[in-house]
Amino acid sequence: MSSAPVITSAGLLNHWQAHRRLTRRVIEAFPADQLNSFSLGGMRSFGAQVLEMLSMPIPTMVGITTGKWEVSFDRGTQPKAELLARWDAQTREIDAIWPKVRPEAWQETMDAFGYFQGPAIDILLYVIDNEVHHRAQGYVYLRALGVEPPPFHVRD
Amino acid sequence: MSSAPVITSAGLLNHWQAHRRLTRRVIEAFPADQLNSFSLGGMRSFGAQVLEMLSMPIPTMVGITTGKWEVSFDRGTQPKAELLARWDAQTREIDAIWPKVRPEAWQETMDAFGYFQGPAIDILLYVIDNEVHHRAQGYVYLRALGVEPPPFHVRD
Repeated sequence: MSSAPVITSAGLLNHWQAHRRLTRRVIEAFPADQLNSFSLGGMRSFGAQVLEMLSMPIPTMVGITTGKWEVSFDRGTQPKAELLARWDAQTREIDAIWPKVRPEAWQETMDAFGYFQGPAIDILLYVIDNEVHHRAQGYVYLRALGVEPPPFHVRD
Repeated sequence: MSSAPVITSAGLLNHWQAHRRLTRRVIEAFPADQLNSFSLGGMRSFGAQVLEMLSMPIPTMVGITTGKWEVSFDRGTQPKAELLARWDAQTREIDAIWPKVRPEAWQETMDAFGYFQGPAIDILLYVIDNEVHHRAQGYVYLRALGVEPPPFHVRD
């Protein structure tokens, strides 16, 4: 069996932070006065979905690096500027925690929040996928509001 | 440097096929008579988005395994049963091509369709992310149509 990596740890961090840059642009593109109120199909506002996105990364990284899985989900509505400020703080925090992941940890089975049992990589991919999923719903909201969303393929 | 893998090749295939099972359920949940017509915000129908999803996996896997990057995108509207049949055929085809990927290929820089230059893993992750993105837009369409979408976390 070859030991050539499918993806490196640095590559995975880059992939995630690239997604986070795009998600930040979607938040930024959202009209501030619609962020916590506009809805389609009885769904949550995009602001509420961003709060969910903000709830997952740090508890997940803390869980993977320390074995302590503690959720704290602030569901209080926040204005756009505060969501962006929290987003930026979290971006830096992810970069700071990342090097603390033991290389072996990614394939170790963990019990995430008593909710999901599997290898750490699957838990992290779920966090990223959840962000992509809710961000895409924000794209539909933006289109319905007549706002051109940021291009999906641009991640700089 | 540890050689512990972040994700294995088999793990990545499982991750993708798990997403594909969920996407299949979203197509299945879509009312057949709305699949190629319903729209929000001037966006494409979900049927058209599924055609786009169907256009990427095989040319990408062929590119990664042979170095030949050839796109053929059938934009002809297809009924739900045909989209599902193509989806299932493609699922089997992905499983068949996957073992042909050289382990070293994932980190090799490739020129995908003259459109994207980067390591093969980034090209494949883009295909998966694009599926998650468009599927999530299908979730909003379903909600707007009054249909409960399949649960996001179930991937069996």
